[in-house]
Amino acid sequence: MKILAIESSAGPASCALAEDGRILASAGAHTGLTHSQTLIPMVDAMLKNAGVSIREVDLLAVAAGPGSFTGVRIGVAAVKGLAFAQDKPCVGVSTLAAMACLADGLPFDGVVCAAMDARCRQVYTALFACEGGEVSRLTPDEAIPLEELEKRLISCNKSIFLVGDGAQLCYNTLNGHVPGLILAPPLLRYQQAAGVAAQAALETEKAVPAERLQPIYLRLPQAERELRARQGEGEKRGTAPSAAAPNGKEC
Amino acid sequence: MKILAIESSAGPASCALAEDGRILASAGAHTGLTHSQTLIPMVDAMLKNAGVSIREVDLLAVAAGPGSFTGVRIGVAAVKGLAFAQDKPCVGVSTLAAMACLADGLPFDGVVCAAMDARCRQVYTALFACEGGEVSRLTPDEAIPLEELEKRLISCNKSIFLVGDGAQLCYNTLNGHVPGLILAPPLLRYQQAAGVAAQAALETEKAVPAERLQPIYLRLPQAERELRARQGEGEKRGTAPSAAAPNGKEC
Repeated sequence: MKILAIESSAGPASCALAEDGRILASAGAHTGLTHSQTLIPMVDAMLKNAGVSIREVDLLAVAAGPGSFTGVRIGVAAVKGLAFAQDKPCVGVSTLAAMACLADGLPFDGVVCAAMDARCRQVYTALFACEGGEVSRLTPDEAIPLEELEKRLISCNKSIFLVGDGAQLCYNTLNGHVPGLILAPPLLRYQQAAGVAAQAALETEKAVPAERLQPIYLRLPQAERELRARQGEGEKRGTAPSAAAPNGKEC
Repeated sequence: MKILAIESSAGPASCALAEDGRILASAGAHTGLTHSQTLIPMVDAMLKNAGVSIREVDLLAVAAGPGSFTGVRIGVAAVKGLAFAQDKPCVGVSTLAAMACLADGLPFDGVVCAAMDARCRQVYTALFACEGGEVSRLTPDEAIPLEELEKRLISCNKSIFLVGDGAQLCYNTLNGHVPGLILAPPLLRYQQAAGVAAQAALETEKAVPAERLQPIYLRLPQAERELRARQGEGEKRGTAPSAAAPNGKEC
């Protein structure tokens, strides 16, 4: 089975073509250019270079969230478009599970903590056990404050392998407070489409037609949270907390 | 410093653009198509997608060997061509050292054995220590029989992390004879241009102009070995061993 996978949930964007657990081709960029410009040309060049037509692909896969709202929407929209045009099934996998897949087969026993920076000292995170080279989920995908993650990691009482674009933030914030933290080396740290392809191969039974593919948001977008907060403030005479960050940054 | 790196020493071919230890863009294919067809279009698409011109690249790097004679020649020729056309410096790094770089930062203490299938039960190999996430060379690049590698790995008396396109061959042949063998997961197993870029960043003082870049062959090509064996047979009345493999395959 040929799987075409896309990852655009944060700063890096990547695509991969996998067949029976083997990566046939891949491409990635982490340049700051918008994914809406780079993603489709990257997929096109990768397929051409591999000598594989989109018609030969059996399943389209995407990191469907959590992640940057814009990034996730671009990835899901790209896969929806490709799947719809070719009448192919597609599957959205957890961005965090796809990241943890990158640790599969590592000579490491402990906990893999997949973490993305959700801003305002929050992370999108999930924990996975890694024993004998096999990765299995311990906790669901959640958006939680760094302080809550600290408590959970301490209670693991194991070595913690930090992956994801929030790994550096977690390491900088929690090192010294949580024992046994290991920052994944760059090649395994950032989310990659190879991980999405690997996770999708485990979830082929969840494949849906293009129109049913949905992004996975763990939180409401900032605009909606602000609107609800303002509505709440109006209704409750200012008792609802504001969703705006103290420093004015989106979170 | 922007480094454009190329890896085509075996079946997979890849390219990467790195800046100050960060991978800005990468692309790879492992499809069986010849590198002479795929490599330059892959570099071109990667640079275009990253919005970086070849003129902005400061150093060109290549996995200069050991490896497949044809693969190494294609990679070295491509980098020579690009460097000559742009009047840029270039550096050839050990294919095996570049592979070992991929283990840099891993939560693993032991020995990294980089191995490529050199056919006829021989491997191109070098051993590296991996302690506290840091990789350092233990032995030079060599072409040796698998039986010799077995002796060396046993004498290490440590966990052995096998990387390279010969890792599976070593694992299949030596597992059960050498204790502590760990086959690297696919994402870290095969040679990648990201490793070439990382190794090149450590060897910038070895940069040369295009005309001085040379491939690193640890053995003479089969045709030359056969010629010398025949000449030796003539001179020594048949006492020189033949370089041809018993099964007729090139080695």
